[in-house]
Amino acid sequence: MKFELEYTSADSKARAGKLTTDHGVIETPIFMPVGTLGNVKALTNRDLYEAQAQIILGNTYHLNNRPGMDIIRLAGGLHKFMNFEKNILTDSGGFQVFSLASLTKIKDEGVHFQSHLDGTKFFFTPEGVIDIQRIIGSDIMMVLDECSHYPVEHAQAKKAVERTTHWAKRSIEHFRNTEPLYGHAQTVFAIAQGSVYKDLRVQSCNELADLDFEGYAIGGVSVGEPPEMIPEIAEVCTDILPKNKPRYLMGVGTPKDILNCIEVGVDMFDCVIPTRNARNGTVFTKNGKIILKGAKVKEDFTPIDEICECYTCRNYTKAYIRHLFNSGEKLAGQLATIHNIYFYIWLTRESRNAIINDSYKEFNKMILENY
Amino acid sequence: MKFELEYTSADSKARAGKLTTDHGVIETPIFMPVGTLGNVKALTNRDLYEAQAQIILGNTYHLNNRPGMDIIRLAGGLHKFMNFEKNILTDSGGFQVFSLASLTKIKDEGVHFQSHLDGTKFFFTPEGVIDIQRIIGSDIMMVLDECSHYPVEHAQAKKAVERTTHWAKRSIEHFRNTEPLYGHAQTVFAIAQGSVYKDLRVQSCNELADLDFEGYAIGGVSVGEPPEMIPEIAEVCTDILPKNKPRYLMGVGTPKDILNCIEVGVDMFDCVIPTRNARNGTVFTKNGKIILKGAKVKEDFTPIDEICECYTCRNYTKAYIRHLFNSGEKLAGQLATIHNIYFYIWLTRESRNAIINDSYKEFNKMILENY
Repeated sequence: MKFELEYTSADSKARAGKLTTDHGVIETPIFMPVGTLGNVKALTNRDLYEAQAQIILGNTYHLNNRPGMDIIRLAGGLHKFMNFEKNILTDSGGFQVFSLASLTKIKDEGVHFQSHLDGTKFFFTPEGVIDIQRIIGSDIMMVLDECSHYPVEHAQAKKAVERTTHWAKRSIEHFRNTEPLYGHAQTVFAIAQGSVYKDLRVQSCNELADLDFEGYAIGGVSVGEPPEMIPEIAEVCTDILPKNKPRYLMGVGTPKDILNCIEVGVDMFDCVIPTRNARNGTVFTKNGKIILKGAKVKEDFTPIDEICECYTCRNYTKAYIRHLFNSGEKLAGQLATIHNIYFYIWLTRESRNAIINDSYKEFNKMILENY
Repeated sequence: MKFELEYTSADSKARAGKLTTDHGVIETPIFMPVGTLGNVKALTNRDLYEAQAQIILGNTYHLNNRPGMDIIRLAGGLHKFMNFEKNILTDSGGFQVFSLASLTKIKDEGVHFQSHLDGTKFFFTPEGVIDIQRIIGSDIMMVLDECSHYPVEHAQAKKAVERTTHWAKRSIEHFRNTEPLYGHAQTVFAIAQGSVYKDLRVQSCNELADLDFEGYAIGGVSVGEPPEMIPEIAEVCTDILPKNKPRYLMGVGTPKDILNCIEVGVDMFDCVIPTRNARNGTVFTKNGKIILKGAKVKEDFTPIDEICECYTCRNYTKAYIRHLFNSGEKLAGQLATIHNIYFYIWLTRESRNAIINDSYKEFNKMILENY
């Protein structure tokens, strides 16, 4: 993987970069649609390509449960299994082990847990999670980390930071001692923890920076803390993390969160908000949110967004999609998802253009007036 | 509407025809995907065009409930509301009034019923149902008919036939006294009833033929009678109905039903089987049915059908779609629906080609060996 920092805003810490892997170029800032189980909910690959998705997410925890690594290996990796030609990043499953699994028991060696699906017992270690991601064949793998709940005592959060650093060391070592399976290169990103404690975030970022990963993620945010803390936490981290490496803020967020975190130097984002909200009938536009189930759009025979070039906006009206939602037709969620993913990627693409044109603050203000 | 009977099989009653409306040509035999509420479940218009859909169905009963005629009229008709450029046929809602609505009370004047959704009271008359379909703007409207349940006594079925004829007269008269609303022409088809009684089917077809409709449907089949009766009933009707007009067998059926009814001279079909079965994980191919949730396809990294040119078969494997079904991902149903609709339309297109090449019996036999 190669990362070039192309441009830094004159008036903020926002940056434009270019990440190159064997599955193509990712221009940052970038939004990465979430495809937990090997598909972005309700979207075909064509929908993703049309949304100009350059990279999507998969999840190690979920894919290890279903379909399981035997199938993924037989398929020749996740790219082939889902026939996706562009980049895939896989989360390590650390977050899911702590939020979703049951009987989770953490030890220095790794973490014991039972699948939320059927109680199957698993033991994830930093090395094992790399091995799984070798089988998945994701372009960007993530280390196993210990993700603190919110709120958490300082002492406990500190322990999680230290274990996360310890695991990151083991991860990068194991990464260096193993080979990709399918002929394309893989890399691994570390994950900074520390909850809402500035000193712990500093400690975590400094310790991880020393390990010389090719990229860094900021984890443990958007777990219940007040949303206004998100850019603050991000900034503490981006101020320390190496400038010449990509920064990925995990699980964030609303258009507002994303724009404010781009402003403090974050390059990569993922979140289920655009897909989940779409299925519930909420869509995002540069002019703000629209509730598609609402009476307000009952007789509105215009697209969700007049200037949007997504398939949905080029072909359907708000009144029609409202009718589908109110009739319980699944096509409603599909059409709204097509739009929201298109919009989120548009938002990061336009942010990038604004950064390059030294007008990022203005762009941010223009959009956030409506949010 | 114009119908040309292009070719009749040398070795069967199967026929190839061409139906032309202001929304384009429909080459028969044809399968018409069901779009009850103004969308074919889980499919975009693009999916329909790619499946080579030449005509889809809408439903008067359902669309009158939701979104209601005010919205459809404001949108400029159903074509514009759903942005569908090709043909739309609307069922009159007769079938739904008798199968779905509650407190249905039939009189010579029309039928009283309450919506299955919220109990709203409606009164459908033959004239009123034409008026609704004028607002919908369907290319092919259907008359209000009385659809008998199965089983039904001969005397009661006879009454339904007579009322259906009486209503058909009123329908065509009202049709001739009213104008289309949106600049494109509309036509109306009559519906033959008579349950499983040959004499009543003969009576119904003869009475309706005298009324000189532009097309005829065979209704009241696939309502619970033994499936082997379907082509028998169809043949009684096609032997009487005018040769120079299209015949539409309503609500039929499986690939087997369709092929056997093409053989006795039916031109048009609609059915929810391909869409409903797709969502449940069953797909159809020229080699038979495949249960996509089954263990048999767990490691099958080939398409549903190697020679199928649908988006799903060109891009995804059975093992992948199985994983999506077993993970509860809605994309599974979308992909299976894309395939099944493509297959059903392919089946009628290939039937047509076989008819023109005087090889229909052979084609029928080849497919039905696997069903």
